[in-house]
Amino acid sequence: MIRITFPDGAVREYQQGITALEIAKSISEGLARKVLAASVNGQVWDATRPINEDATVKLLTWDDKDGKSTFWHSSAHLMAEAVESMFPGAKFWVGPALDNGGFYYDIDLGGRSITEEDLAKLEKKMNELAKQNNNYVRKAMPKAEAVSYFTEKGDEYKLDLISNLNDGEITFYTQGNFTDLCRGPHIPSTGPIKAIKLTNIAGAYWKNDSNNKMLTRIYGITFPSQKELDEHLTMLEEAKKRDHRKLGKELGIFTMDDDVGPGLPLWMPNGTIIIEELEKLAKETEQAAGYKRVVTPHIAKESMYLTSGHLPYYQDSMYPPMELDGTKYYLKSMNCPHHHKIFAAEPRSYKDLPLRLAEYGTCYRYEQSGELFGLMRVRCLHMNDAHIYCSREQFATEFRAVNDMYMKYFKIFGIDKYVMRLSLHEPSRLGQKYINEPELWLETEEMVRSVLKESNIPYVEVPDEGAFYGPKIDVQIWSAIGREFTLATNQVDFAQGRRFNLEYTGADNAPSTPLIIHRAPLGTHERFIGFLLEHYAGKFPTWLAPLQVKILPISDKFMPYANTLLESLKNADIRAEVDDRNEKIGKKIRDTELMKVPYMFVVGEKEMNENKVSVRRQGKGDLGAMDIETMINQLRQEIKTRKSD
Amino acid sequence: MIRITFPDGAVREYQQGITALEIAKSISEGLARKVLAASVNGQVWDATRPINEDATVKLLTWDDKDGKSTFWHSSAHLMAEAVESMFPGAKFWVGPALDNGGFYYDIDLGGRSITEEDLAKLEKKMNELAKQNNNYVRKAMPKAEAVSYFTEKGDEYKLDLISNLNDGEITFYTQGNFTDLCRGPHIPSTGPIKAIKLTNIAGAYWKNDSNNKMLTRIYGITFPSQKELDEHLTMLEEAKKRDHRKLGKELGIFTMDDDVGPGLPLWMPNGTIIIEELEKLAKETEQAAGYKRVVTPHIAKESMYLTSGHLPYYQDSMYPPMELDGTKYYLKSMNCPHHHKIFAAEPRSYKDLPLRLAEYGTCYRYEQSGELFGLMRVRCLHMNDAHIYCSREQFATEFRAVNDMYMKYFKIFGIDKYVMRLSLHEPSRLGQKYINEPELWLETEEMVRSVLKESNIPYVEVPDEGAFYGPKIDVQIWSAIGREFTLATNQVDFAQGRRFNLEYTGADNAPSTPLIIHRAPLGTHERFIGFLLEHYAGKFPTWLAPLQVKILPISDKFMPYANTLLESLKNADIRAEVDDRNEKIGKKIRDTELMKVPYMFVVGEKEMNENKVSVRRQGKGDLGAMDIETMINQLRQEIKTRKSD
Repeated sequence: MIRITFPDGAVREYQQGITALEIAKSISEGLARKVLAASVNGQVWDATRPINEDATVKLLTWDDKDGKSTFWHSSAHLMAEAVESMFPGAKFWVGPALDNGGFYYDIDLGGRSITEEDLAKLEKKMNELAKQNNNYVRKAMPKAEAVSYFTEKGDEYKLDLISNLNDGEITFYTQGNFTDLCRGPHIPSTGPIKAIKLTNIAGAYWKNDSNNKMLTRIYGITFPSQKELDEHLTMLEEAKKRDHRKLGKELGIFTMDDDVGPGLPLWMPNGTIIIEELEKLAKETEQAAGYKRVVTPHIAKESMYLTSGHLPYYQDSMYPPMELDGTKYYLKSMNCPHHHKIFAAEPRSYKDLPLRLAEYGTCYRYEQSGELFGLMRVRCLHMNDAHIYCSREQFATEFRAVNDMYMKYFKIFGIDKYVMRLSLHEPSRLGQKYINEPELWLETEEMVRSVLKESNIPYVEVPDEGAFYGPKIDVQIWSAIGREFTLATNQVDFAQGRRFNLEYTGADNAPSTPLIIHRAPLGTHERFIGFLLEHYAGKFPTWLAPLQVKILPISDKFMPYANTLLESLKNADIRAEVDDRNEKIGKKIRDTELMKVPYMFVVGEKEMNENKVSVRRQGKGDLGAMDIETMINQLRQEIKTRKSD
Repeated sequence: MIRITFPDGAVREYQQGITALEIAKSISEGLARKVLAASVNGQVWDATRPINEDATVKLLTWDDKDGKSTFWHSSAHLMAEAVESMFPGAKFWVGPALDNGGFYYDIDLGGRSITEEDLAKLEKKMNELAKQNNNYVRKAMPKAEAVSYFTEKGDEYKLDLISNLNDGEITFYTQGNFTDLCRGPHIPSTGPIKAIKLTNIAGAYWKNDSNNKMLTRIYGITFPSQKELDEHLTMLEEAKKRDHRKLGKELGIFTMDDDVGPGLPLWMPNGTIIIEELEKLAKETEQAAGYKRVVTPHIAKESMYLTSGHLPYYQDSMYPPMELDGTKYYLKSMNCPHHHKIFAAEPRSYKDLPLRLAEYGTCYRYEQSGELFGLMRVRCLHMNDAHIYCSREQFATEFRAVNDMYMKYFKIFGIDKYVMRLSLHEPSRLGQKYINEPELWLETEEMVRSVLKESNIPYVEVPDEGAFYGPKIDVQIWSAIGREFTLATNQVDFAQGRRFNLEYTGADNAPSTPLIIHRAPLGTHERFIGFLLEHYAGKFPTWLAPLQVKILPISDKFMPYANTLLESLKNADIRAEVDDRNEKIGKKIRDTELMKVPYMFVVGEKEMNENKVSVRRQGKGDLGAMDIETMINQLRQEIKTRKSD
């Protein structure tokens, strides 16, 4: 018998050699149908692979990242089977699952070419093969045997792969008529692959080297149901319409300039209004939560980053130094060291804690130019940053308050789907990968865990991925169209306090080092506004909209009335403009729609005589004539409460 | 006869050889008594020196910078006369007037030493000599004659000075028994030096080289009346108490840190509150004035600064470049190029002008470390910056609006004394020192001049000190204790628009280049907050005070009532704290006084029972018991209107 420990801590005994799939069946048939793979002692395994010793086991389904990833990798094999049947003699290089969904396979078609039309035929073939519900069968053999197998087959690609593997066992996977060299794991059988879309054909040099042969790369994505595939395709189409780079230009949010440099957005007036509204929200929220604001320079001497440890470990992500009079200055890539210096600037006592120092600090990170992407991956980051210096006793309360802040923001922005990934330490690597504070690790991990549970915040635990100096919480959010974004990282930090000699005098009069919480619930302006552009499709709620009301006089005759309205709106702190062009009202409405202004006030004879406005609401059309004062009060309330639609 | 042109443009004829002093006498005896020197064709001359050809003449009095400077330099000679009489054989190196007032002389006392007590004796002697009202007499002689004079006297210092002069005439000045090699100019006689204070003795290496002999440097300052000297000494004493570095530390405004670097202040929570209040004021004011806000990165590629011309001409004032992947990035020393890029990011028409782009941009300038001084001379500058892009027709209106903004700010901050220095071009240097746009120069200078006159803004004109690209306006302000500060520079710019190919489509459909106004009425946070610390002696008006109300419970018994008050104040957006220490009320009051909090609410039995607070106002003492709601409303009003005391 062996002992199997489950994620909830429960332990059960099973026969040696039992598989994860059999374990699932022992719980319920329904569960077994969903199992795609299993995490066994932290490694992802085939659900059908025998477990021969005591282990911690987590069953992986479509709801798990690793479950999806296994599903897509198995789909790549399925595609290869279809390709082999349509293009006999095709040779296969690698076919990985992709982090952001789907898979590809790089294939040598032996001089033949493949067309878009072929993709439909391949999809059809894959569907046939999937329906056969063939098992993915794992087979291990000695390296020498594998080499002779592929030598006989004349497959230089697989031989090359094998030559880079250690001596010992090599594994193969077979489903139906297709066998591939593969480390695995795979899903139990092809049956669960219910919906298939091959999305793209591209050329890819073998080993990414342009001196090598060009292989054919076929991209695809699969799902356990047609409904999910349809939703995915709709989402992609919608994401294209909502592309933040496209909307960012159309709505005058930001621009890039070659002379300024890649990854360094210039925020146009409309984008700056959004930035300022977000900062106002953050400042109000943080002030109510007892934060104090600070302002720090964007540079510091090398010595500071040597103390913090950014140098040399983080050097590649920093802009190079400016060297003058024998001193090197660096652009800051994080605000923490500067905040630590403010903590250290005055003597601190336990009465001063928790000290929460907040700053919309601008950091600079040298992302590789190939990685840069619109506002999503930039080199200049306006961070909603703060550092909380507290005692161990205060930690849980402070961490709970940080989570409450997230929840408050998620509500304001209508973010319904989110998850916190809690990355933990691995006890065997204390003193190497992790700072050697076993008690503090367990204590803070447990505090974080229990706060997340208490607050009913969805979270997953990720073993052995903590930061060096403490547990790390990555916050993942989903946009309105279901795309996933990493919003922010919270970190617990036992190390920096000591590196910077931060101390406070405890109630016992003895010096003590504070714990530090790094947090940035709104992430960076760059990424968050990029997210919001997609999330709202550029149709910002009124409080965030750069222009809140456009007044559209039907003709020049009503310009004086329009200007009176404008004054009233401005006096009520509502961002408004008059469309004073000599255009037909239909054109004025269409142009305003394009700029996604939440409210249009159409004014003509009737409205002027009755001191009213005809209201058109973005996305809702004509709301009829409204009294101007009522309308202003309603707008003020909508803005003040930061109402979402 | 020669023609003399006066600053107001009037021209009169005089006998050749007339002196400025005689011209003054021809106007009035009163004026003649005030004349200290004269500006003749832009050069400062002795008022007693004959004028032999047509000239532009400005009579210089104590009210002119050059008048004061001449007065102080003549005072240095007077001091040298006193020193020579007390220390026969003393040799003199140089004795200049100082930019920020007063003078010094470096002296070789031949091994003798001078004490603080000697200074009083020297002052007495100087007063005696001044009363003799000896004339300062100019005498020119050939260089060879001067050399033989000092060789005979054995004065190696003056011989060294002469060796660096061109061949030709050398001038000497004599008053009473003292003769000195001197280029001049000097005041007519010693009589006007009515009040004398020798302030300091220091050692100074000859020629600032530590291998040379150490000379004795005596500092002093003089005035035309004892009253002015007394005021000056009081001001100095007060300035010492109000030193922004001292107050900045005591009040938790800013700190400096060796690991961050010199000239790079870290703004503590209290300083950040002041920054945010100032930014709020600026944003409100600029929004009302039709500005649009932008946010731009702190760096840009070398190519941008080559276009702007900052490189190579301004390179010494910039941090060195960060070089990576063959590209050089620089920290921005000015925001203008970034704003120009935003202007250029969209097609612009005359309907978009004036376009006013504002940003609290942070710039970095590499000031020499010897020049750094607290917040006054730093390397990191948070600028209240904006650039106004307008047509020639719009220029006067825009410039007037900028001035109105200054006036508004001066009123808010109680700045009663200010002057604008308008620096003009010199027509003969068009195409060299000045961009060759003779019409635009005259047009904009005249527009600036007439707006200043119309608005009754005190200003002086400075010939031949314009910027390369247009007239420059330096704004000088005086603090409450009478110290002068340079607040900001406004510039008119005809050049950058063309360098950056900025264009708008005119009403005539033709492309046109906008004029640009650079303006920053609140200067930088660094200098302005440094100024305000001195101006208010740290006793900020309520709207700017980091802490607005401190609630002082007489004993623990009243803590619940104090906390209720705290909540009410916070709900009214008033920055308040409770002094919850277990201290006597007297101590609490004293400590709060030290932190210069505008209001103290003392609460005990009586106040709690009557729902009142006993109000103590900073600088005014006890104001008696007040109803809490009345008090909150009064405070809100005081804050909202940004009331100064």
